[in-house]
Formats: sequence, structure tokens, C-alpha cells
Amino acid sequence: MLELLSEHVCFGGVQRFYRHTSQSTGLPMRFGVFLPPAAHKADAQVPALFFLAGLTCTEETFMIKAGAQRAAAEAGMALITPDTSPRGAGIEGESEHWDFGVGAGFYLDASEQPWASHYRMESYIHELQQLVVKELPIHPRRIGISGHSMGGHGALTLALRRPDIFRSVSAFAPIAAPSRCPWGIKAFSGYLGEDRRKWAAHDASLLMEQEQTPFPDGILIDQGLGDKFLTEQLYPEEFEAACINARQPIQLRRHAGYDHGYYFIASFIDDHIRFHARNLAG
Amino acid sequence: MLELLSEHVCFGGVQRFYRHTSQSTGLPMRFGVFLPPAAHKADAQVPALFFLAGLTCTEETFMIKAGAQRAAAEAGMALITPDTSPRGAGIEGESEHWDFGVGAGFYLDASEQPWASHYRMESYIHELQQLVVKELPIHPRRIGISGHSMGGHGALTLALRRPDIFRSVSAFAPIAAPSRCPWGIKAFSGYLGEDRRKWAAHDASLLMEQEQTPFPDGILIDQGLGDKFLTEQLYPEEFEAACINARQPIQLRRHAGYDHGYYFIASFIDDHIRFHARNLAG
Repeated sequence: MLELLSEHVCFGGVQRFYRHTSQSTGLPMRFGVFLPPAAHKADAQVPALFFLAGLTCTEETFMIKAGAQRAAAEAGMALITPDTSPRGAGIEGESEHWDFGVGAGFYLDASEQPWASHYRMESYIHELQQLVVKELPIHPRRIGISGHSMGGHGALTLALRRPDIFRSVSAFAPIAAPSRCPWGIKAFSGYLGEDRRKWAAHDASLLMEQEQTPFPDGILIDQGLGDKFLTEQLYPEEFEAACINARQPIQLRRHAGYDHGYYFIASFIDDHIRFHARNLAG
Repeated sequence: MLELLSEHVCFGGVQRFYRHTSQSTGLPMRFGVFLPPAAHKADAQVPALFFLAGLTCTEETFMIKAGAQRAAAEAGMALITPDTSPRGAGIEGESEHWDFGVGAGFYLDASEQPWASHYRMESYIHELQQLVVKELPIHPRRIGISGHSMGGHGALTLALRRPDIFRSVSAFAPIAAPSRCPWGIKAFSGYLGEDRRKWAAHDASLLMEQEQTPFPDGILIDQGLGDKFLTEQLYPEEFEAACINARQPIQLRRHAGYDHGYYFIASFIDDHIRFHARNLAG
């Protein structure tokens, strides 16, 4: 069921990459897992943080670049990194755009053809969550989610749509109002079609407008003010305003100088791991 | 003189990549620099750690994969990452082997043609050391050196050949007795020719036999016991024995399960940064 592709001892725990065949996407999918030393104990069930990567990334990007394993080992928390889209669907032109198709699944289930058969990343993330809980020493109800850019959009929307599954949520430089930014409009038009009512179900800021404090422990977002995508693509302030309206505690930390890349993520990932560890401890 | 290629705020400091034209190699060379927050102060001169990467790597590899900036920021230490060879020399077949030629300069000055004109990485590292001391807020005499695999060989040999310049030395899984391992024999034959007396000047274990405690603060080496190259290519125990004979304090830490990659380096890099910070504090 799970094919182990590689395994590396890391901070006393183990970094693994797996392949499996997904029912949701109908294709082989890869993902990464870091298991902390605490997971080695008999009958261990450690909390886990899903981290959803951004455009063009893979299941390896966060594990290689974020330096997250040290803090995860200390916190006794597993890390799970899915890929960013199906690969090998064979749809004509699916690799022609870096911001749509391969590497750009946007963590939703496409309703439009030719995408609807395979581009089902929301269902896939839930399938993966059930799989890792079944196959690995991960606690079934201590699951948090975070992500970067497109993956920050994924983390916020998947958590808001299923706060019963993802009990803790944070993000780095998320696409926080995709219905109004070029990346989001391109993706939603292609995957969901032109009916904007469908878009609202996958727009973190619009989802939050309908909520009442789904995450009483708060939501943590880090945003670099030197991020070249900030004003055109991200709109974290829109999500912040929606949280305030919904009485959802939100900490949007604005960091002077930091850009959109992994040197920014690495600088603050420890805070996110500790944030999720606290939220999932109960 | 220094062309800034990219710049990223990171852990309150700054991660930069530069290009410059090297007199030693006669070619444009790239390198990475991390400057800690302490380097921002007026008239700051921070200690610096050179980290030499292994076969096939570039100036980016360590900066992206090792997660070293956090501890370097805390210790107030700069990181400097050279490339692993000249690029663009135009020598026929220079990119045909992953363990010789491009990406495999072995941190020595080739004496054999066609390599001798450009493959002069030992001179280049010294040129780079003088350059960063001149152009960046780095203390001219607080310079340490470390490296991985081929770069571990580079760190040990360059430090043993010039302990007046590199006052602190450590390594991860170094090629510690290159005269007797396949990688070293291939590189030394090609770059230095068949006269093995020339090889001895670039073999850490043979160099150490001629020394008397050049590093009184000790030498730190980390080695994974799950490293698939350990028995055929690395021979750290040979260097350890030479150190003991030379009364050179050596700590060769053997880590069960860890392999040859950056998940191993990341797990122990903080110890190395603190080791160099201590040694260079005086």
C-alpha cells in the first residue's frame, strides 16, 4: 500500500518519502513524512502537522528547505508533506503553465473537464490524512495544517472546511483571497468554471465571513513585507479583516524585509511548530 | 568587484549570493554568504565559517539544505559557501564525470594539463577568504572551515596546510585518506599526475602524520554509520589514528543510522557552529 522510496535518520527521528496509489486522483502520488524520536516508542501516537507547499514545489521542497525537523523532533510532532498536484494525468498542456496544472493543484477538487478526473487534491489530502493515521504512529485527532503561498491557501481553506479534522491552522504568505488575485482567478476559472459561487467555497477570506470562531486557539500567519507577491496575489489583510469580523483570533505577523521564499519560512517555522504543538496537546 | 545575484532576509540576518571574477581560476565564480544580525552593527567584524560542499554540489547546496543560518545568527557568525569547482573552463569532457571535473575540484591546484589553468580551487579559496574579509564585515583572523565529503577533505587539508589562516576546523563524513580511496585516486591522478609524493600534500591523514597539534582546541568530525560511502571512500578512522599519533585532540563522533546526506548534516550542524564560535572567540 505504501511504497517506501527513501529513508534518512534525521534529528534522532526519521525522514521518509513514500509513493502510493491514490483513489482520489487515480494516480501514484508521493509524499514526505518526518517522524520524531517520540514516534519510536511502542504504541506511540504523535501529533502531526500537514504542510502544503506552493506553486512548482513537490513533496520534497519543505523537507529539504525549511529546516523544520529540529523543532518537530523537539516537539514530538510528525510532519507530512503532500505533493502539489497529481502528476502523469496525461492532460494536454498540463505542464505548460507554472501556475496551473502540474505543480499547481490548488488543494481543491476540480469540477471542470479535463481536470475533474484527476485534479482532486482536496479529496487527496483527506485520503492521505486517513492513510497516515492508519499506517503510521500518528494520533487520529491531533492533526494540524499549515502551508506556504498556494499551500497557505490550501491550509486555510481545508481547515475552515473541516475544522473537525484539522484542529490547528497556520500559514506563511498565503493566497488569502484567491477570488480576486490573478493566480486564484486563473486556477478557479480552470478548475471550477466561471460560476463564482463555487469559488467562494475555496476562498479563505470568503469562507471566514461565514464562520464564528472555528479555531478558538487562534490562527497564526507570517507574512514578509519584502514579498514581491504581497500586493497583487496574497491579500492577507483581507483574511485578517474577515477573522476580526468573525471574532476569530488571528495573529498576522508582518516581517519587514522578508521575501516569499524558504529563507523566510525557515526563519519562523519553529514558531509554527510550537504553535501547533500547543494547540494539539489537549 | 562583487556582483550581488540575490539577497534574502533570513533569521534577522541576510543570505546573499554573489558572483565575481577570480584571478585564481580565471573564470567567474559564485559563492554564498550568510551575515548574522551582529554583522549589521557599525564597524562589526564577525567570525566566519567557510563550508566546503561535496561532489556535484554548488554554492547554494549548504545554504538551502543544512538549516545552518539559525545557529549562525545566534552565534553571530558569518557563513561562506564557495562553489565546488570552476565552471565554464571549456575543457573537453569536464562535465562527463560526476566525481571529476565540474563539481569536483577537490580544493587543490591542479598541476596537470588540461586542468592546471583553471582548476585551482585551493588558491581560489584563499582568494575568496581575502575578498570577503576586504568586502564584508568579517574579522580577518577569526576564520574557521568545515565541509562535507569532498568538502570535508578540503576543510581538513586546507586547514592543515594553513592553520595560520583557518584557526578552527571540523568536517562531516570527510574523504579523510584520499590517496587510498577511489574518489581520491581518480582526482589526484587527474589533477596532480601519478607522482604520489604530490598527493601526500593533499591527503589529510598523511598531512597529519607530519604535524604536532596544529589545532590545540581540537578537531570535530561527525560520521554517520549508515553512510554507504564509509568503508570504501572515507576512512575517518585513518585520520583519527593520525591525530592520536600527532597528539592532535580529535573528536570523531560516530552516529548510528545516519547516512551521507544533508538530513545528517542538518542534524549536527548546530554543534559545529557552536564549536567554531568557541574556538574563534579568543
